[in-house]
Amino acid sequence: MSVDFSQLVQEGLAQTDAALERLLPGPDVQPHNIHRAMRHSVFAGGKRLRPLLALESARMIKGTLPDGAADVGAAVEMLHTYSLIHDDLPALDNDDLRRGKPTCHVVYGEAMAILAGDALQTLAYETLAKLPGDALAKIEIVKEIAIATGTGVGYDGLAPGMIGGQVWDIEGEGTKPTAERVEAIHRSKTGALITVSIVAGGLIGGASADEVASLRRFGQKAGLAFQIVDDVLDMTQSSEELGKTAGKDTATDKATWPAVFGIESSRATAAELLRDALAELDRFGAHAERLKAVARALVERTH
Amino acid sequence: MSVDFSQLVQEGLAQTDAALERLLPGPDVQPHNIHRAMRHSVFAGGKRLRPLLALESARMIKGTLPDGAADVGAAVEMLHTYSLIHDDLPALDNDDLRRGKPTCHVVYGEAMAILAGDALQTLAYETLAKLPGDALAKIEIVKEIAIATGTGVGYDGLAPGMIGGQVWDIEGEGTKPTAERVEAIHRSKTGALITVSIVAGGLIGGASADEVASLRRFGQKAGLAFQIVDDVLDMTQSSEELGKTAGKDTATDKATWPAVFGIESSRATAAELLRDALAELDRFGAHAERLKAVARALVERTH
Repeated sequence: MSVDFSQLVQEGLAQTDAALERLLPGPDVQPHNIHRAMRHSVFAGGKRLRPLLALESARMIKGTLPDGAADVGAAVEMLHTYSLIHDDLPALDNDDLRRGKPTCHVVYGEAMAILAGDALQTLAYETLAKLPGDALAKIEIVKEIAIATGTGVGYDGLAPGMIGGQVWDIEGEGTKPTAERVEAIHRSKTGALITVSIVAGGLIGGASADEVASLRRFGQKAGLAFQIVDDVLDMTQSSEELGKTAGKDTATDKATWPAVFGIESSRATAAELLRDALAELDRFGAHAERLKAVARALVERTH
Repeated sequence: MSVDFSQLVQEGLAQTDAALERLLPGPDVQPHNIHRAMRHSVFAGGKRLRPLLALESARMIKGTLPDGAADVGAAVEMLHTYSLIHDDLPALDNDDLRRGKPTCHVVYGEAMAILAGDALQTLAYETLAKLPGDALAKIEIVKEIAIATGTGVGYDGLAPGMIGGQVWDIEGEGTKPTAERVEAIHRSKTGALITVSIVAGGLIGGASADEVASLRRFGQKAGLAFQIVDDVLDMTQSSEELGKTAGKDTATDKATWPAVFGIESSRATAAELLRDALAELDRFGAHAERLKAVARALVERTH
């Protein structure tokens, strides 16, 4: 199929950035510093992968890009950014650099970084509540997103949401990671938000419950594959290529896939998960080509 | 009117605590520590004032307590607790005690306190999205609450939401507080969440737009009066009576009402605001007696 992938990515990134620019208070809106801190991290060069998944999922379901899809993507990106700001704090991962730039607390101080993360979570829900269209779909999106980013057991029945995964990750530091724990952390800490980006995109596009179930299975498999690839790249690439401190996961005994299964087996698992993920979209026929292209690119990337 | 106030408070507290007990993951749900940290702060002896306002606002509008009112109150209390946990962190107010008990980060560490606050915010939105009843009312509640707890200018047009007020408060430390700044901080940092508790209660009770407007004006006035009284008590009472370090606001040059206007003038302003607040509820006739009794008790309290 002839999907011009780089154009697709550029379009998605431009739509997401336009939505974020519109939704985030400007740098001169009072109180200044928190809005500047929020913008510092939101516009720090993120690849907008989650919004891209939301956009293409919405487009696949509706056949055309529905109103509000870019705002769903922007809300997901706000949640992703809030989790990064808090993860980077001295009390958590203590990271000074993210995508080659100083992290939020390095520039704005810890207090402002904590509050900027809080405010991005809040703004994500404000954004979702203001979406155009059907109130039932909007409430379903809020519910899905809150569950996926919380601490409780999510829809996959296997692992808690994003914050729960972060807790497991912190608590496991310094102990030898097990296969079970690595999978649970990946499914929750990263996988849950990736999956819900796809589900929420589908819901704004009008997906039926049965279509949502397919999207969820696609997201769970593609999300896990994405994280495995991320772990492999962290282990095999230099800091310069990654824009962050390479090998840091290994150095701190972080639970990574290759640390438990080895690099070759990890690559094979990612490829298998991708294949299974793509098969979940076959029911959508030619409409699925763009979303499939995104998933392929995420898993087959080399940096 | 013969409202048995202490019974009203006891009932409200019991309903709120039952809802919180049901909605918060148990202390043995994995990952343990974050759920224990969340419960530590949520069940640290709060008076459940905001939930009480939500419950009585809902009851006044519907004539009887509507399904979901206790969950609205519980969600508001989760948001209040998340803001306290983050406020108490070393990078912010650095408080070791709250209501006479060690604060969250003292018991569970800073990382877990940051994440527990995050997770309480998330769980509040999950709770709201799962409310029974009309999807439109639920989306309206989510929107109102997100705006009231964010950084942007809220519905009163005067001040930003809860996080915005927190930023102003932090940034003003060490400078002489002005009347304008004190009012803006009070309206945002405390007033916005109190007001939205009343508005959200009204919405779950089926309030019309016009009734919501009355509830909002009532909440803005009662909320400001409540905070002024809080400032006066902080200045005039001992630490033992307050259950927290008395006089701390003055010691750190915090923006308080009596610091700018004096104690007697502050008391008079609180009384005047209360009278105006109560007048906003006259349109609801005898149905308003319970909510009026709560407002009176909050402003006329002596500890």
